[in-house]
Amino acid sequence: MPYPLDVPTITIKATKKASSDVAGGELALIRMIRRRVSKGSRGEVRLGIGDDCALLRPKPGEEFAVTTDLSIAGQHFWLATHPPESIGHRALARGMSDLAAMGARPVAAFVSLAEPRELAGEWTRRFYNGLLQLAEAHKTTLAGGDLSEAPFPLADVVLVGSVPAGKALLRSGAKAGQVLYVTGTLGGSAAGLAQLPELADSEQKMTKKRRGAASFTALALHLYPQPRIAQGLWLRKREIATAAIDLSDGLSTDLMHLCEESGVAAEIEADLLPIHQAATLEQALHGGEEYELLFTAPKSARVPRAIAGVPVTRIGRILRRSGKQTLVTLKTAERARPLHPAGWQHFA
Amino acid sequence: MPYPLDVPTITIKATKKASSDVAGGELALIRMIRRRVSKGSRGEVRLGIGDDCALLRPKPGEEFAVTTDLSIAGQHFWLATHPPESIGHRALARGMSDLAAMGARPVAAFVSLAEPRELAGEWTRRFYNGLLQLAEAHKTTLAGGDLSEAPFPLADVVLVGSVPAGKALLRSGAKAGQVLYVTGTLGGSAAGLAQLPELADSEQKMTKKRRGAASFTALALHLYPQPRIAQGLWLRKREIATAAIDLSDGLSTDLMHLCEESGVAAEIEADLLPIHQAATLEQALHGGEEYELLFTAPKSARVPRAIAGVPVTRIGRILRRSGKQTLVTLKTAERARPLHPAGWQHFA
Repeated sequence: MPYPLDVPTITIKATKKASSDVAGGELALIRMIRRRVSKGSRGEVRLGIGDDCALLRPKPGEEFAVTTDLSIAGQHFWLATHPPESIGHRALARGMSDLAAMGARPVAAFVSLAEPRELAGEWTRRFYNGLLQLAEAHKTTLAGGDLSEAPFPLADVVLVGSVPAGKALLRSGAKAGQVLYVTGTLGGSAAGLAQLPELADSEQKMTKKRRGAASFTALALHLYPQPRIAQGLWLRKREIATAAIDLSDGLSTDLMHLCEESGVAAEIEADLLPIHQAATLEQALHGGEEYELLFTAPKSARVPRAIAGVPVTRIGRILRRSGKQTLVTLKTAERARPLHPAGWQHFA
Repeated sequence: MPYPLDVPTITIKATKKASSDVAGGELALIRMIRRRVSKGSRGEVRLGIGDDCALLRPKPGEEFAVTTDLSIAGQHFWLATHPPESIGHRALARGMSDLAAMGARPVAAFVSLAEPRELAGEWTRRFYNGLLQLAEAHKTTLAGGDLSEAPFPLADVVLVGSVPAGKALLRSGAKAGQVLYVTGTLGGSAAGLAQLPELADSEQKMTKKRRGAASFTALALHLYPQPRIAQGLWLRKREIATAAIDLSDGLSTDLMHLCEESGVAAEIEADLLPIHQAATLEQALHGGEEYELLFTAPKSARVPRAIAGVPVTRIGRILRRSGKQTLVTLKTAERARPLHPAGWQHFA
């Protein structure tokens, strides 16, 4: 856990101008990054930064899981509200979480970063601080990437993980009668996100004492989400989960993805949802960016109450899909209603 | 060759507005892309688009080469001058060329695309037309990616190739006394790029007859560069090349990279350079985006005059590096002078 959830003070401050040390241009920036990355081969990474391509070789009997995720200013983060360390951390966490959902062990990352000239110094160093601290915590090698100038900052981060051949957790394995589980809490990241503009306006500090523990941990969950690598590995090794997906777009949207790929329907119970103390039901259903794991298991499976220190909660069950039936149903004490995907969607 | 160089007519026209078919948002756009991509496993791609990650397994005895390249409006292309097919083609060609320089066989591509809402229909379809046509020509599977909204279009494209373990062509293998070769011609892409604004202004058509063959092929080289996959594979299989790099940033810059990674110096002769008919010496030295291969071979090696139909030209030799010596020297009939890297560099 590179940024423990109980970090004592979070300061939100825009970094609009920073001293630039890229007098030498792109090559100097690449040298700065290379200095911070371990050289030579390391595990599956046979050749890292410095050639036309990196070279990666899985261990015998394993295969690679590959995912790529964009993080764009104005869409996924804001310069005025997100510290550069958080932007780097979150850019990497997105793909890490995809590896977790496959039960894969992280191996290598590739970072394509584009940014305005004035960010190409201190801001970039802090961006890589956040990114590399999370990478190191999961023994992940920065094996390559690209750099470009752009009117605003953005990153595309590729994650490569390793998993025994044919053993990855898929979205497509859920069957009627199985039980739905989720790790951690829901809605915390959305609740944290909602606090950001207010914090940025006043440039005030966020401390546990001043704001209360609930809103403080919600903010930490938003700025420094912890991908559930250990939980994904545990589920894959014990062969307990039949399907899994990570909650990046929101429970309502990601559960629909899982149902579509598995050809099933699902029912979740509002009373069972592990809603974060600072969050509303709506935030828990549609908030997204939790990077928790949603998974299914047979009724007979012994699913523990916690995996590697993170709570696991039963939230519903998988149903047979018949014709035009609603994919996801939300049951409350009063009634059952269709739950339409209302998580994040671009161009919507 | 998806876009043959002698394509009869190239029309340059800005695509500022296009009918959008993304009423269904991001998910509809993803469905449009998935419809065009082969399903299920194909060679090394065990699982493609549709899950949290793609799954890739190299053939026995092989390893993966991985590269990632940004293509950003205003930096690498312009909406007003580049047809969407060319933007898609070039975004993929960049990484394909890196695979060629390693002697790797293309396997899979991942495309992260961000764009303004108004491009998320016809423009995007044409972007993928250009990209997928080049991918298919090299039996490369689109195995994943990401989509996001952004104020202007950009793509980050990851290429995964396969190469026998330990046999990739590296930048670091050049030794003093060896000979420098280049495939194809130099400066053509830069000469083609120089014609674009004029063409865009008048929205005129570019035909061989009207403009002459030289400037026509220069434009084709810029818009639809052909990565030298066959040539890279040939060099790697014959074990003729001791080091290789692709010319993406310009001969002066890329030769310096090769010298730095090999710990050597180099001398090239202006009279030997295969300068494109439409290009100047400066364009040939610093132009970039040729995506030709620059490689070294022992004096004794039998390097043919052409590989898979593309000319190969000896342009200089590798020298011992001593202290603060100039890395690259350019010899002309009159004199020898240091050749400083003046190719493309961001933040410079």
